[in-house]
Amino acid sequence: MYDVIIIGAGAAGITAAIYAARANLNFEIISKDVGGLTLWSPDIENYTGFHNLTGVQLVEKFEEHMKDYDINVKPESVEKVEKKDDNFLVKTDQGEYETKSVVIAAGSSPRKLGVKGADEFEGKGLAYCATCDGPLFAGKDVAVIGGGDSALAAALTLIQMANKIYIINMTGELTGKDNSLRDKVLESGKVEVINNAKTTEVFGEQFVTGMKYEQDGEDKQLDVQGIFVEIGHIRNTEMVKDLVELNEKNEIVVDKTGKTSVEGVYAAGDITDLPGKQSIIAAGDGSRALLNAFAFISKQ
Amino acid sequence: MYDVIIIGAGAAGITAAIYAARANLNFEIISKDVGGLTLWSPDIENYTGFHNLTGVQLVEKFEEHMKDYDINVKPESVEKVEKKDDNFLVKTDQGEYETKSVVIAAGSSPRKLGVKGADEFEGKGLAYCATCDGPLFAGKDVAVIGGGDSALAAALTLIQMANKIYIINMTGELTGKDNSLRDKVLESGKVEVINNAKTTEVFGEQFVTGMKYEQDGEDKQLDVQGIFVEIGHIRNTEMVKDLVELNEKNEIVVDKTGKTSVEGVYAAGDITDLPGKQSIIAAGDGSRALLNAFAFISKQ
Repeated sequence: MYDVIIIGAGAAGITAAIYAARANLNFEIISKDVGGLTLWSPDIENYTGFHNLTGVQLVEKFEEHMKDYDINVKPESVEKVEKKDDNFLVKTDQGEYETKSVVIAAGSSPRKLGVKGADEFEGKGLAYCATCDGPLFAGKDVAVIGGGDSALAAALTLIQMANKIYIINMTGELTGKDNSLRDKVLESGKVEVINNAKTTEVFGEQFVTGMKYEQDGEDKQLDVQGIFVEIGHIRNTEMVKDLVELNEKNEIVVDKTGKTSVEGVYAAGDITDLPGKQSIIAAGDGSRALLNAFAFISKQ
Repeated sequence: MYDVIIIGAGAAGITAAIYAARANLNFEIISKDVGGLTLWSPDIENYTGFHNLTGVQLVEKFEEHMKDYDINVKPESVEKVEKKDDNFLVKTDQGEYETKSVVIAAGSSPRKLGVKGADEFEGKGLAYCATCDGPLFAGKDVAVIGGGDSALAAALTLIQMANKIYIINMTGELTGKDNSLRDKVLESGKVEVINNAKTTEVFGEQFVTGMKYEQDGEDKQLDVQGIFVEIGHIRNTEMVKDLVELNEKNEIVVDKTGKTSVEGVYAAGDITDLPGKQSIIAAGDGSRALLNAFAFISKQ
């Protein structure tokens, strides 16, 4: 019987694991990948204390931190979390874990583009992570689909490598809130923003050669060799949808202390309905979730 | 007219300031000191990404981070925050600031001992910060008054320098929740825990030479050259007590998004009624508070 099972290994899950280790709890942290969306950030300039590093570098710091406590992330995929008597059963693709409490920090995944050609060209010019795949497009023309902060962050990454970047934005103006990020992108001279543009198709041969979009009722076409999709995220709550209350965005509803609708189950990071999807916020909430779990176990 | 005035420069206030700078807001961060209680922590091992540094070192990282954005903390003391038409007036010992929104991150201060001799010997052997003053007691016998995590953290700091450390604990057992911290303290061989002990007097000549306490109805005495008081904290909410709702502990009541009872006023860090008084939590909540302020200003 575990004290706590932590699901997810982004900033929230890793912080929860560090707190669990320091409290000498019997726990596992389970996730297919380490770093979560922090890994996908090009420049992180607002994780207090680290004034300029990449997402990859920050995740390396997280991993070193876990090593200090001999924390190893179990690379399994959680399929379901359910109640079992007074405890919980976490079912993965490789086994089951019975536990007194659960911290859900499974974050979110990029929303798919879902137009003609999008699935076909995924990994062949169409990508969901500029930090990961940007370097493959050195000197090429690329499109970023989206108009929020993550689209701007992707564009900022691509400025370093691509020749020209089009931002294909559905609405009348960019919706990103990080002014410093937007200024950098727009001042680069390499970026052209196309507003009111609805992507309709991705095409190519072996690899992407272009995309089509609709603007003011007209069909238009762009020659690009790369397409980065940044149109939001889907919360990874499928595994707990029968266990805890979710909101209309499929986020886990928590109270102000990070408690879900079920006692013994806590949530932190991008997966919750709290505002502010930021690495530093996820880390803080991960700490709070584990302290909640610890208090719950201690009472038993 | 400022967009936002940030009160306090601990992990919460500094994070809010970094977010304010990145959003190109017109703001000030006001605080007599920089670092807040983070500065007072001996070893910080649970601020995700930094696996082993002192509070002083972490605050240095925070200060470097602020330098990147030319953020200078105004060393003033905030006396009152009040509503002025649709805006707010922040009154300090040196002036007034009119602002559209306020982030309160003024943290907390150590609770005073309040027994005979305590005020008289403050700074003469009686101290409230082991990290700051511990080195003055190298090779000496000292007492730590308190039994929670901050008392244990103080004892841990003192183990490195003092000869012998007594923990003078009011209750029947230590109440600290950080098992890893407690184990380190108890395994040191330099610490003696005295339970059910109520401190009654601090005495000495030019400097502290001892203290008295009551245990099981008996008056007892301890020869020590240093006394570190770790009996909790008082929230620094005096300046906003007529503006926002406080709870019975004088903490600012916030909703799950960090909003206080007054629109345009946000709070973060140890000063709020949220559980978990941790540097990483304060930093995350500081980010969230500023994002709230930013959204509020943007709507206007």
